[in-house]
Amino acid sequence: MNAINHPSLALATFAATLQFETIPHEVLRRAEDLMLDWAGSALAGKGARPVETIARYAEQMGGPGPCEILISRTRATPMFAAMVNAAASHYAEQDDVHNGSVFHPAAVVFPAALAVAQALGRSGRELLTAVVAGYEVGIRVGEFLGRAHYKIFHTTGTAGTIAAAAAAGRLLNLTPEQMLHAFGSAGTQAAGLWEFLRDAADSKQLHTAKGASDGLMSAYLAQAGFTGARRILEGAQGMGAGMTRDADPAKLTDRLGFRWTLAETSFKFHASCRHTHPAADALLQVMREHSLAPEQIAHVDCHVHQGAIDVLGPVVNPQTVHQAKFSMGTVLGLIAEFGSAGLTEFDSSFNAQRVAQFRGKVHMVLDKEVDQAYPARWIGKVSIRTTDGRTLHGRVDEPKGDPGNTLSRTELEDKAARLAAFSGAASPAEMAALADKIWSISRITNMGDLL
Amino acid sequence: MNAINHPSLALATFAATLQFETIPHEVLRRAEDLMLDWAGSALAGKGARPVETIARYAEQMGGPGPCEILISRTRATPMFAAMVNAAASHYAEQDDVHNGSVFHPAAVVFPAALAVAQALGRSGRELLTAVVAGYEVGIRVGEFLGRAHYKIFHTTGTAGTIAAAAAAGRLLNLTPEQMLHAFGSAGTQAAGLWEFLRDAADSKQLHTAKGASDGLMSAYLAQAGFTGARRILEGAQGMGAGMTRDADPAKLTDRLGFRWTLAETSFKFHASCRHTHPAADALLQVMREHSLAPEQIAHVDCHVHQGAIDVLGPVVNPQTVHQAKFSMGTVLGLIAEFGSAGLTEFDSSFNAQRVAQFRGKVHMVLDKEVDQAYPARWIGKVSIRTTDGRTLHGRVDEPKGDPGNTLSRTELEDKAARLAAFSGAASPAEMAALADKIWSISRITNMGDLL
Repeated sequence: MNAINHPSLALATFAATLQFETIPHEVLRRAEDLMLDWAGSALAGKGARPVETIARYAEQMGGPGPCEILISRTRATPMFAAMVNAAASHYAEQDDVHNGSVFHPAAVVFPAALAVAQALGRSGRELLTAVVAGYEVGIRVGEFLGRAHYKIFHTTGTAGTIAAAAAAGRLLNLTPEQMLHAFGSAGTQAAGLWEFLRDAADSKQLHTAKGASDGLMSAYLAQAGFTGARRILEGAQGMGAGMTRDADPAKLTDRLGFRWTLAETSFKFHASCRHTHPAADALLQVMREHSLAPEQIAHVDCHVHQGAIDVLGPVVNPQTVHQAKFSMGTVLGLIAEFGSAGLTEFDSSFNAQRVAQFRGKVHMVLDKEVDQAYPARWIGKVSIRTTDGRTLHGRVDEPKGDPGNTLSRTELEDKAARLAAFSGAASPAEMAALADKIWSISRITNMGDLL
Repeated sequence: MNAINHPSLALATFAATLQFETIPHEVLRRAEDLMLDWAGSALAGKGARPVETIARYAEQMGGPGPCEILISRTRATPMFAAMVNAAASHYAEQDDVHNGSVFHPAAVVFPAALAVAQALGRSGRELLTAVVAGYEVGIRVGEFLGRAHYKIFHTTGTAGTIAAAAAAGRLLNLTPEQMLHAFGSAGTQAAGLWEFLRDAADSKQLHTAKGASDGLMSAYLAQAGFTGARRILEGAQGMGAGMTRDADPAKLTDRLGFRWTLAETSFKFHASCRHTHPAADALLQVMREHSLAPEQIAHVDCHVHQGAIDVLGPVVNPQTVHQAKFSMGTVLGLIAEFGSAGLTEFDSSFNAQRVAQFRGKVHMVLDKEVDQAYPARWIGKVSIRTTDGRTLHGRVDEPKGDPGNTLSRTELEDKAARLAAFSGAASPAEMAALADKIWSISRITNMGDLL
């Protein structure tokens, strides 16, 4: 084996040989932050129809097992625990995102890793190591696939399958060769199209569910000797060739072991699609600075990157809470009315008359500076015309939750507790205990139940 | 709902409302032929490492259920029975193929349909109706995705997921609306890249396994109210947009209810990739006509379509039986040596010295006439230079197994029995009983076990 001119192998070798001891302390701490943030998001999915539908299917098809399903506190085999927990993770749209890859790593990496760790009785350190492997691999695959991929494909479903394979494979102690085969099997299963957004269909839950469980399957198969393509990413008939027009293999190995992309991952502050956050923060800034009331605003231009227009553009008249999370006008309407766009505001008011009225004032305009900075930086720029004829400008260079503007552990604990309370999946006391457990996870010798 | 300008809906409505009574008699009889041919292929997968690896994974992750796994004669839930039977179906490369779509329908349609029929105690007529729905849908999806898709994607994995959803959905009695959602969920999971061929990796078994089980999952989810994109095929961010450059939505509804694409499906006569069959038949014709021995042949030019070069071209020095099935030179070498390229010949001689020697004499050349006729017609043309300086030409307009040159029921029974005997999965007496059962399947009121 030789990793020169073989990016898939270099990446597989990195994932298979990553050691806890070589991961910087601040990266491990951030992984713990991301784990609590993920658990809150997964718990928030309890009771959601698409999530519960997948949970019932898992119960019907799967067998009894040692792995925890968070929303029901029942147990399943690793495949189905990963499937249901991943379905739940992305429902509230509060899980993390990596800007450069436009990929939501937690929703696929943690469900796969936790299931395997629980099935095999692995330690907290082994779990964290696997999670870091999953993030580093998945984010680089997302960056490799690039913007053309994201125009059609839901990167969290596609890159997510490889990310989940990397995390599961690390816990299964795959050799580099086996990890390469796991990538091959994962990449040839990678799927997820944006078409569902137009209809507010349930596919987003299916994408994370299948990303996690298909990735996990790939790792188990590789351990058992099942082989996959050796260049599933960069090969002439691989993902880069078939699923994008601007694949860049150099991204796959970008500063492996030096650049820790996990630490670049952002927390979501608003309960909406991340593409709405920069403008939401910029609007909030202007409204606070000028003490504006919603009714003083006549028109809002959001100066956005093309990706925002691609994903949010089709949503003109949202009919469900989920669809509203992809409506720039609705998100800004909630911000204008309530100062925040959390789960509660969406649930009670996404189609309230005043919010719907504000929605009509909001327009997206492609902005050269914002578009060129994207996806490395998500700049928020808005221009507001007031009813009394003023034009005001707002600008946020790093939206709340980004690494340079991150959430404290107290803010993370509050957010996770709010998410669990929203769905009734866990009490405040249980969430406090969970936070304690995660903050000291590197001392756990055998990962048992989280709850 | 209005199916005008909505091909996905027209196709879903057709699949959901197809009635046994409206299917022509000869189409139903051909469906029975295809069923026996499929069962032989699935049984031939017994003992194959990739197939058994998937079977062990299914046992580890799934639960007990009512559905038959043919190679082990054990039972599983519908998802895993479909998964394992589909993994087994395509291993011997002896399952059917539809020329125009370059799609192997049986490998994904029958496993999904049989599992649901057994789970729900459906009749033989209901099973046949569902199978016809699966073929008609999957073949049209394959034709819709076109040649550009097949250059990178394994259509049996991609179109196959929708085909399996259609068959499973028909047995679940989905409404047209639910069937449309099943298509949405299936299409957004559709995957399968050719990259594995370069390494002779095991992905082909994964593609059929996942096509069948993911399609089945989509149908069960749709029955439970899970929604999918309404235009997953033709939409701006659907399969046509993301996975091909020459999608033609008109193909999706081409003469629905009048043209029965199932009856256009070919049986495989040689145990190799279908792309090798036209040239193999043409070589056999020349050698018989001129009583040539292999050592009298100095050079063979196979005049082929581009798809043959795309799929077979990367295989230059086959190291495994499976890879040898994608080597034009090996297939022609077996034909030259033994007069046939069946499972036995591959197993004993794919790398025998005389076969390997012949392999070096075989070259593929793109042929304008053959390429233009493809994929509707698979013309076989070879030019042979003999050691004594003659140039001989062979031509076959319809390779053995095509609808105009099809196999009789006796030939089908022989083929299925040979396949089952090869792997030791069923005795000749059992295969004779299975054939009797399938020839009278439309009188079975409750589909029990096949074996």
